[in-house]
Amino acid sequence: MSAASNSLLVGDWGTSSLRLWRLAPDGGVLAEARGADGLTTVADRAFEAVLERHLATLGAGSGEPVVLCGMVGARTGWVEAAYLPVPLDLAGIAPEATRVPGIRRPVFILPGLSQNDPARPDVMRGEETQLLGLAALEGGTPSGLVCMPGTHSKWVRLDEGRLSGFSTAMTGEVFALLRRHSVLAGVLDGQALADPASAAFVGAVRESLEAPAEVLSRLFALRAGFLLHGTPPSENLSRLSGLLIGAEIAAARSRWGNLDGVRLVASGAMAEVYLAALQAAGIHNPSVSDADACSRAGLLLAARRLTARSASEAAA
Amino acid sequence: MSAASNSLLVGDWGTSSLRLWRLAPDGGVLAEARGADGLTTVADRAFEAVLERHLATLGAGSGEPVVLCGMVGARTGWVEAAYLPVPLDLAGIAPEATRVPGIRRPVFILPGLSQNDPARPDVMRGEETQLLGLAALEGGTPSGLVCMPGTHSKWVRLDEGRLSGFSTAMTGEVFALLRRHSVLAGVLDGQALADPASAAFVGAVRESLEAPAEVLSRLFALRAGFLLHGTPPSENLSRLSGLLIGAEIAAARSRWGNLDGVRLVASGAMAEVYLAALQAAGIHNPSVSDADACSRAGLLLAARRLTARSASEAAA
Repeated sequence: MSAASNSLLVGDWGTSSLRLWRLAPDGGVLAEARGADGLTTVADRAFEAVLERHLATLGAGSGEPVVLCGMVGARTGWVEAAYLPVPLDLAGIAPEATRVPGIRRPVFILPGLSQNDPARPDVMRGEETQLLGLAALEGGTPSGLVCMPGTHSKWVRLDEGRLSGFSTAMTGEVFALLRRHSVLAGVLDGQALADPASAAFVGAVRESLEAPAEVLSRLFALRAGFLLHGTPPSENLSRLSGLLIGAEIAAARSRWGNLDGVRLVASGAMAEVYLAALQAAGIHNPSVSDADACSRAGLLLAARRLTARSASEAAA
Repeated sequence: MSAASNSLLVGDWGTSSLRLWRLAPDGGVLAEARGADGLTTVADRAFEAVLERHLATLGAGSGEPVVLCGMVGARTGWVEAAYLPVPLDLAGIAPEATRVPGIRRPVFILPGLSQNDPARPDVMRGEETQLLGLAALEGGTPSGLVCMPGTHSKWVRLDEGRLSGFSTAMTGEVFALLRRHSVLAGVLDGQALADPASAAFVGAVRESLEAPAEVLSRLFALRAGFLLHGTPPSENLSRLSGLLIGAEIAAARSRWGNLDGVRLVASGAMAEVYLAALQAAGIHNPSVSDADACSRAGLLLAARRLTARSASEAAA
């Protein structure tokens, strides 16, 4: 065993990236490995080799357990980890991890969640671990709405630590599609994200909220505005972002009602953009929790439990 | 001059296809040439060579005039034909055609239309010619709403032959993007269009109309429904189409009010799908006019006028 024998190895392995951490028992980050080795880039299903290469940079002992969350547990990932149906208590997530069979190292993949209501089928993988971490960081059993923006943004209803339902908006993916592949591509700036302080962004959020039905119509106006009035590409990008995030907030309001006090789980520029949008929408008292910190806290909690189990199984 | 010297050569040259017709003076189709030589496929700006190749199959005399509409007149096309600002009388479109300079054959490109309202900038190219044709086929100065579905669907308000305003929804393009490039691609059937008679299509249209704000959320449910309940790809395709067309109709209702009596300008399967959607939305007395027939009627009207001008200029 290494000198870091009380530390825990955890990771989030998604479609487009892999992040691994060695965490101290109190959750402090002792070391981190980040790679662009997302699941879609792994050739010939060489998941173990990719994982071991990154673990080596963290000085992982050969028998040290690792706990992973994210799309690694999808049908198209390494090993399918079952969906747990909601409603469920967040505390019930970790015990249901799936151990990767046929390899020496104990690698556990956390389950995803499913909403089986035929009128509102939905799934998540990775966000459940952030929610577990959010609850741990708050030190209680949270209630209220949580907004988790991204490629597929999740809005989650918590009731005293119980996840009662959620919805997904394809905001990030539609934004990327329109920007890369649509007739709008030529009129949009190549920068990563909107300027959340711009009038274009704030105005677009409000337009979407005032007439959410018209969002698909307002998209084409970005092109027409460029042709007729020479609207700058940076302004168009902020407008596109505002229209789509405004539509997401309108959808959340339609589905979940009053959004005051929503917890935003996001990092960096994404957190800034969504916080500005929530404020432009007139939502009171939104709070922000760092998404990476929530992921690590959730993984830590799961790892403590699973590692204890793994050790007791090894001793038995 | 050929035996068809009283006939007229006209065409619609768009981004992805070229269609040319030799029309009898009464509008009857004497010959047709269709090619996949859309504007984006023309190499080295060899527009004249591509056009002449297709005209040869119609037996065009070397000096016969041709009247074109569509994206051929865009900034990215052959020769830019100015946008005419709305509101305007449909009758004012033809006289503003642009003659292609520097070539022997008289080739006229009809103008597009622009809506310069800074709050609702919009443009069209090609649909204005269909509207001219619609008015000609109806033999009057129509009033009411017109729905022209497509990659960029147009909804147009006419007041006694005057076009007072319009809106564009990117329905067809968003449909194609989601189907080809998104996470939904794997759960959607490869067939061209929805089944307009299916419960999936009709139900999705109604869901979008009932909660238009939630359309972007309901898209992801297509993937989740496939993962959790094995929803068939053909049903998913009909549902996607219904959700997006329902959103377009909701946007039109939000923008234009009561949609009863809307004129649908569309052909083939597109006409069937949109008519079914309008009916599912509870819109009374929609009528259907064939889009190709409207294009030809509009081009014929413009060609009569422009050819007369061309002949009188040649005689002068």
